[in-house]
Amino acid sequence: MTSLSDRDTPFLALDPTRLDANAARMRARVEALGPRLRPHLKTVKSVPAARRILGEMTNPATVSTLQEAEAFADAGCTDLIYAVGIAPAKLPRVAALRARGVDIAVILDSPAQALAVAEASRTAGAAIPALIEIDCDGKRAGIRSGDPALTIIGRILDSGAELRGVLTHGGGSYGYFTPEDQRQMAAEERFAAVTAAERLRADGLPCPVVSIGSTPSAHFTTDLGGVTEVRAGVYTLMDLMMVNCGVGGIGDIAATVVCTVIGHQPDRGVILTDAGYMALSKDHGTASMPVDQGFGVVAMLDGTPIPDLLVTATSQEHGQLSIRPGSDAPLPELPIGTRLRIYPNHACATVAMHRSFAVLDGEKVTEDWPIMSGW
Amino acid sequence: MTSLSDRDTPFLALDPTRLDANAARMRARVEALGPRLRPHLKTVKSVPAARRILGEMTNPATVSTLQEAEAFADAGCTDLIYAVGIAPAKLPRVAALRARGVDIAVILDSPAQALAVAEASRTAGAAIPALIEIDCDGKRAGIRSGDPALTIIGRILDSGAELRGVLTHGGGSYGYFTPEDQRQMAAEERFAAVTAAERLRADGLPCPVVSIGSTPSAHFTTDLGGVTEVRAGVYTLMDLMMVNCGVGGIGDIAATVVCTVIGHQPDRGVILTDAGYMALSKDHGTASMPVDQGFGVVAMLDGTPIPDLLVTATSQEHGQLSIRPGSDAPLPELPIGTRLRIYPNHACATVAMHRSFAVLDGEKVTEDWPIMSGW
Repeated sequence: MTSLSDRDTPFLALDPTRLDANAARMRARVEALGPRLRPHLKTVKSVPAARRILGEMTNPATVSTLQEAEAFADAGCTDLIYAVGIAPAKLPRVAALRARGVDIAVILDSPAQALAVAEASRTAGAAIPALIEIDCDGKRAGIRSGDPALTIIGRILDSGAELRGVLTHGGGSYGYFTPEDQRQMAAEERFAAVTAAERLRADGLPCPVVSIGSTPSAHFTTDLGGVTEVRAGVYTLMDLMMVNCGVGGIGDIAATVVCTVIGHQPDRGVILTDAGYMALSKDHGTASMPVDQGFGVVAMLDGTPIPDLLVTATSQEHGQLSIRPGSDAPLPELPIGTRLRIYPNHACATVAMHRSFAVLDGEKVTEDWPIMSGW
Repeated sequence: MTSLSDRDTPFLALDPTRLDANAARMRARVEALGPRLRPHLKTVKSVPAARRILGEMTNPATVSTLQEAEAFADAGCTDLIYAVGIAPAKLPRVAALRARGVDIAVILDSPAQALAVAEASRTAGAAIPALIEIDCDGKRAGIRSGDPALTIIGRILDSGAELRGVLTHGGGSYGYFTPEDQRQMAAEERFAAVTAAERLRADGLPCPVVSIGSTPSAHFTTDLGGVTEVRAGVYTLMDLMMVNCGVGGIGDIAATVVCTVIGHQPDRGVILTDAGYMALSKDHGTASMPVDQGFGVVAMLDGTPIPDLLVTATSQEHGQLSIRPGSDAPLPELPIGTRLRIYPNHACATVAMHRSFAVLDGEKVTEDWPIMSGW
């Protein structure tokens, strides 16, 4: 048995009560509006954490890699969307999962991919379901709901595979910081997906699933009319980017990095720790947000943030702590050996640097939950 | 047997002939100037790669975590420096390695750490060697060579543990981009270390080891008088930051990420791949360098760079490729399913995202070399 005070640092601590509260809050919010919740498991990449998030493993879930799909399938998941545009060479692994009884769907946004899914369906002797990705914000992937390719892709899938529906990811919501803007983004995301679904149906094609999602849009939306399911992931652990977006507070962040003070640079106003980018990731996602939190907010071991103390630089196994630029807060006295906790910018990026969660009950580490890596 | 063309993407490919050439070139350069080379194994984090770099595993090496120390010791390493300021709570693991016959030294820059090393030495019944870290560039850790604490720390170690010597890391060399500036930085690094060693000796203290290092300073130095050993790591794999620093060319980069085209966004001039930050890391180390390479330079599967095509954005499992801002190079036709290779900004950060190197012989993957993670 180890505890926050004696486990070798750095390590990733998980407060399971916060995880449970975050998971329950989002589920209640989405289900109250009608759709099903399809949590994205890419944030936790961990089977025991997925059990807490899904309740029943047979509930819908989203994955970002086929390794996640296979591992969560081994743990009982049967209803998955692999929510990254499909590379044709990956379809045999998808077909193998389906042959095991796992209802995994792929996503795509081109006729070339649809033809590949149709061909893989013929090879497998069983239709592979696909959702057409719709671009609602010009940030990443998908076709616009008005693109003529929509019907072309739909027809290829309907005749040669299975047209499962449409899907959007409102990642643009990470660039908005007021409830009004967030509600507007959520409305645009919903509108893009529902419009695409209506176009497919008007062309005589099926569109049973209308899947939207991102943590901010799922949190702020007030209208999910026409939407059948909502995907979100980072709400489960929360992070400083989501705090910037108004989804919650620092007190909702469930995963923190525990580190140790290993040096002082008084002339530069810097305290050194053993949590560098290998423990925190290089993600500086708050850099372009209203509150730039450096590479993380520094807290005492009990989780209480230290006023305006941030991780302001990282190298591989060193973190540099200093006072937020412009603040006149004092640099605290933190002797060599002091243990601290870091609230991360981006939970998905930080979790992926670790091979397990140290699950806390107060000060005690009661379990280690493995985190997967690779593809 | 897999190959560049059929292994599931993304994966990390390693050209062992480049690794060998990089390793041999640096060893010859440093040894010609007198000192021993103590390669930093944090870049590769892999036992088979370490064998290629060290030749004999009993040759000197550097590590950034105790997990690396333990794993490389299991593989035969006996001469290690753990080159991150020691946290007192980690000393029992250091003592355990020493009790196994591994001559591992720690580094530190405060009387508090020296006292902890002395106490751990008493507890272990055997002196633990420590080097005093000297700050040569004001960038991270260490005391200045003129700091009165130098002698205080030296005396504590000499009477209660083992004063092994002094050590600097010239990380500031990453901020210089001409041979003249690099030589100047290397001279300052050498001067700081040698001056500290001379002060200790003038105070009647031993200083057998004078250890300096960073890849740029090790590459550009012309005078290592008074230096006994040189540490460097990223020279083994090379990367786009080192190309910016003038240490080599893209043709020296030994580790690349292989990915697949999964989509197109013609209106934005973007091609999507399945190598996001989970495969590349979030490191944008060239952002502040003369040639900003985004999150990596894109090449054909044979390694030939595509003119001005960069990874310009990443999310967890998506990479966005576009033409370098300001260039009038055309966006190439790269159909769905096309395989590409990405030259990384920062080899240490990219390698750590993967669990193995796919070792190439031409197109073929002949071996998988495990990469460790954790602490």
